[in-house]
Amino acid sequence: MASKSLEAQPRSEYNDNERLRPAIQPFAGRIGGNQTSVLDPSDRKNAEALKRVPDAAPHIRLRQSLDLRVLLDTELWRIAFMEAVGTFLFDFVTIWIAAHPPPSSSVPVPPIAGIFATSTFLGPLVGGITNWLFLTLFIYALGPVSGAHLNPTITISTFCAGLITLPRLILYVTAQVSGATLAGLAVRSAYGSGNYVVGGCDINTMLVPVNEAFVLEYVFTQALLFFAFGTALDPRQTLIYSAALAPWLVGLALGLLSFGSSFTRPGYGGASMNPARCFGAYVGIGFPTYHWIHWVGPIAASIVNGVIYHVVPPWVK
Amino acid sequence: MASKSLEAQPRSEYNDNERLRPAIQPFAGRIGGNQTSVLDPSDRKNAEALKRVPDAAPHIRLRQSLDLRVLLDTELWRIAFMEAVGTFLFDFVTIWIAAHPPPSSSVPVPPIAGIFATSTFLGPLVGGITNWLFLTLFIYALGPVSGAHLNPTITISTFCAGLITLPRLILYVTAQVSGATLAGLAVRSAYGSGNYVVGGCDINTMLVPVNEAFVLEYVFTQALLFFAFGTALDPRQTLIYSAALAPWLVGLALGLLSFGSSFTRPGYGGASMNPARCFGAYVGIGFPTYHWIHWVGPIAASIVNGVIYHVVPPWVK
Amino acid sequence: MASKSLEAQPRSEYNDNERLRPAIQPFAGRIGGNQTSVLDPSDRKNAEALKRVPDAAPHIRLRQSLDLRVLLDTELWRIAFMEAVGTFLFDFVTIWIAAHPPPSSSVPVPPIAGIFATSTFLGPLVGGITNWLFLTLFIYALGPVSGAHLNPTITISTFCAGLITLPRLILYVTAQVSGATLAGLAVRSAYGSGNYVVGGCDINTMLVPVNEAFVLEYVFTQALLFFAFGTALDPRQTLIYSAALAPWLVGLALGLLSFGSSFTRPGYGGASMNPARCFGAYVGIGFPTYHWIHWVGPIAASIVNGVIYHVVPPWVK
Amino acid sequence: MASKSLEAQPRSEYNDNERLRPAIQPFAGRIGGNQTSVLDPSDRKNAEALKRVPDAAPHIRLRQSLDLRVLLDTELWRIAFMEAVGTFLFDFVTIWIAAHPPPSSSVPVPPIAGIFATSTFLGPLVGGITNWLFLTLFIYALGPVSGAHLNPTITISTFCAGLITLPRLILYVTAQVSGATLAGLAVRSAYGSGNYVVGGCDINTMLVPVNEAFVLEYVFTQALLFFAFGTALDPRQTLIYSAALAPWLVGLALGLLSFGSSFTRPGYGGASMNPARCFGAYVGIGFPTYHWIHWVGPIAASIVNGVIYHVVPPWVK
Repeated sequence: MASKSLEAQPRSEYNDNERLRPAIQPFAGRIGGNQTSVLDPSDRKNAEALKRVPDAAPHIRLRQSLDLRVLLDTELWRIAFMEAVGTFLFDFVTIWIAAHPPPSSSVPVPPIAGIFATSTFLGPLVGGITNWLFLTLFIYALGPVSGAHLNPTITISTFCAGLITLPRLILYVTAQVSGATLAGLAVRSAYGSGNYVVGGCDINTMLVPVNEAFVLEYVFTQALLFFAFGTALDPRQTLIYSAALAPWLVGLALGLLSFGSSFTRPGYGGASMNPARCFGAYVGIGFPTYHWIHWVGPIAASIVNGVIYHVVPPWVK
Repeated sequence: MASKSLEAQPRSEYNDNERLRPAIQPFAGRIGGNQTSVLDPSDRKNAEALKRVPDAAPHIRLRQSLDLRVLLDTELWRIAFMEAVGTFLFDFVTIWIAAHPPPSSSVPVPPIAGIFATSTFLGPLVGGITNWLFLTLFIYALGPVSGAHLNPTITISTFCAGLITLPRLILYVTAQVSGATLAGLAVRSAYGSGNYVVGGCDINTMLVPVNEAFVLEYVFTQALLFFAFGTALDPRQTLIYSAALAPWLVGLALGLLSFGSSFTRPGYGGASMNPARCFGAYVGIGFPTYHWIHWVGPIAASIVNGVIYHVVPPWVK
Repeated sequence: MASKSLEAQPRSEYNDNERLRPAIQPFAGRIGGNQTSVLDPSDRKNAEALKRVPDAAPHIRLRQSLDLRVLLDTELWRIAFMEAVGTFLFDFVTIWIAAHPPPSSSVPVPPIAGIFATSTFLGPLVGGITNWLFLTLFIYALGPVSGAHLNPTITISTFCAGLITLPRLILYVTAQVSGATLAGLAVRSAYGSGNYVVGGCDINTMLVPVNEAFVLEYVFTQALLFFAFGTALDPRQTLIYSAALAPWLVGLALGLLSFGSSFTRPGYGGASMNPARCFGAYVGIGFPTYHWIHWVGPIAASIVNGVIYHVVPPWVK
Repeated sequence: MASKSLEAQPRSEYNDNERLRPAIQPFAGRIGGNQTSVLDPSDRKNAEALKRVPDAAPHIRLRQSLDLRVLLDTELWRIAFMEAVGTFLFDFVTIWIAAHPPPSSSVPVPPIAGIFATSTFLGPLVGGITNWLFLTLFIYALGPVSGAHLNPTITISTFCAGLITLPRLILYVTAQVSGATLAGLAVRSAYGSGNYVVGGCDINTMLVPVNEAFVLEYVFTQALLFFAFGTALDPRQTLIYSAALAPWLVGLALGLLSFGSSFTRPGYGGASMNPARCFGAYVGIGFPTYHWIHWVGPIAASIVNGVIYHVVPPWVK
């Protein structure tokens, strides 16, 4: 017996016989899936569900978004707990891979092969590729649970675009910063000392003035949001390309931008685009004075992105 | 409750219940999608829509194409604005990656490994691969909005092939040049000086006469148009291979052509195939006398491509 | 005409004509497939099958899980035998690839290209990529038979999550340790001596204290379980992304984590995440005193993962 | 309005409403698609179409194949024109990439890294990878139009296998040689002189006797035909793997064979497998006496391949 129509079975089981079902919360701000599971707010049947989870539909009204009673929903706390677990693991592996002894001040560039034979180039290349593949894996694994933000930049920008509520913002950012802090402490304990720097969070301010580093942090974060919204949060994608590619594309965007920003200017090791990861890294090795750019850059980019999103929304009524 | 028939939901929601729908404009000149969402001009129901957006169908009649009243459509302005945003980001990252100090006039070629161990080869290799992956990402993200031209070459060539109208050409090229100019200024500000050259826009005219550089610019742009039309604008693709690959293939075409054109002849660092990107780069570092080839090459290739398109059209009636 | 329903043909053959069918056991703890073939325990028709194979449904009750009478099922022994065969092959190839002469105590790091030009980096890079691709192949090949655990870490963690029974745990871990032991002996015999070390099982305790190595072993194993459960054992995946990617993603997780953990700290050659493989390797070359971390790390991570699984389960009733 | 049922539209439009349809000619000898669009000659409805395009079905009868009246079909001329355009672009880029100064007679091989650090190895490696990716792009773009032969070897071998008619052979080979000649002249004009050799077309006859070079040319061409027929012209592929992979696999076959044949024997720079490309290259730099092997090798391999095809055909009745 056993295997009759194995492929057809799940469908019929999930749809008809509603006894054992996958637990997935409709949620407009999910990375990956391109809003395939959102609810239509104009359908009365969804009113009950939308009261409990207001960000199950895009274009949340401000009053709903700020309603803190949603914090009473235990489901949201369990989801935020998974976000913390995921952020801890993601930040541990990416901080561990990017940790290396502080560079000596003057590495000579070989005259023939140029920068491509130096660790200035090869380090971010490895970091970019591993960033890509790890983020893709995390989005596949966590996307159906918390939406796989894993990064305050995503959470803040989806809030500015009206895709998540304030309570979710509060819980997610708290979860991300907590997970990153634990990751930073774990890396320090596994490294055996705090005598290392972390790629993507390390700027030589002797060579790069902080305001110029801010321009880079801002623009690369803007590009990351552009890709995250365009490839993983846009319902038009599903119509044309299906949703299965989104985790690969968002991972690729992060990896490519962190690599692409890293080797052009001496002293600038690459854009962070993730304030929690650098926060966690600094908990292990000490905070620099320029850490503010990792928060102000994403917030500024999120506001600009939110304005664009409201001017040119992907949904019409 | 929540997840009943997640896969079935979007279809039924988009098709039956027309209240909350993804905003996607039918448009024959879209890169990616292979014209899956065009309207049939012989169907009367489409007459109204085609008056407002004449390039929602392929093979626009000349009178319709030149009708400037389409400029009154605010939707077109919003789409062109997104094209400017996308071009700014695309040109910023690709100019930033390709920026490097001016090469010393005589780099020796190692006698054993040859050119493959020099930055003359390795630089365009990195540029080509990042061009590929970034353009793929941008097409996925922007394709459903503006069609992801991002390059006057594509806009001019789709106009010559009768796939877009004159008003769209005007708005898109303006948007692309504006975005590229901002990108060029932002790179200069992020680099800290204008003392760099940009791969794909830099020709040593002591070693390569301008008319020979023009042959290369022309042929490689012709090849880019061949691939863009063949893999991303051709409805026959969808019948045989489905439309999901198109953004990868157009990105690969750009990356492979910019890499492949770059290392054979000393002094020629690769074809541009994108006049706006070089225009923007030059705003930051000063214009050379040969900048005309970046405009004349694509225009000539677009006219030839348009003639071919009309002689061997992908649609029949 | 001509090409009518070429793709539909195989389907109709398997589904309509039920005389010759693929033999596949419903099993909740299968790696790959994302629990597509599980039985619903609330459906009476499944009662008979669930008595024979209690882990054909997720969320097994403890009493059922510990029922040793399941050991009488000869089908389970045949499946465990295939698990042993698969583990032997998998561990032979991955031990063989990772075997290399003991490193001299002090490998100089080139000042310019840094660690990226040393075998400390390049060895695990090759090991990580081959781990990825081999595990993917083995999951495709063995997944429909035994669920392709191939690693006590997976077996113990699925037991802690209530996805497999104690009898299956006993048979699988025995099979894995037996297969690995044979593989370790075969590698020694193929190498011609026991004078080698095996990547992923070799720690220089002069440079890395064992308790710090335990932190790394624990966190990387936790990450592996996070990915294995999130991408290959989670029924929500199938709803959003389909199940076909799972073998690629689990293989990628193992390869990326074994590579990513390997080159940051001098003396630490990468996390094992697989106690049987190191056990087998040590049978060939002698056991070190720190072998306990390869067992305690996975067991600790499995318990934590099991708690998370019960707090935030992927199924709802 | 606008976007209703975007995915459903093309299907219904192409099949039901026959007013605006993609122009695709049923054709058995198409590279890519694995004969998905062939006509069944035993169906009476196809008799009319098969009179106009006899190679719309496999296993053409000899009398039909030699019927020169098919030359009156203007559609065939337009398709051959596209074949010429595609061959011009393909040969231009692959000749440009492979063009390099004539090698000095004795390059020393480094004692440690061996041949892998020499341009003898790295040149064909770059050539092989770019061949692969370019050919894949060209097959995607041109496959639905002319079948993307781009190479007399494919045209001659499909004729010998009874998949194309004599008139198509004549027009295609003429188109390929014309396109290649233009490409060879354009490369010479872009290079600024004729002082270069072209990888894949350059044999040092002091080191490799011509009859031994002929054996290599013959065997590698036979392998190319084996792959082209097995992965891109075999209808069984579509049943198991779908047709979308074929362009990647044929491109890979060409790239891998041109790379794999290139570095083993000093003086032999790799198999051509494409007589038109070498013909075009020699128009720019002068003909060697051994050019005959580039024609006789493919013709001999095509005849052998045609015999195999008729003995073991992929279609049964």
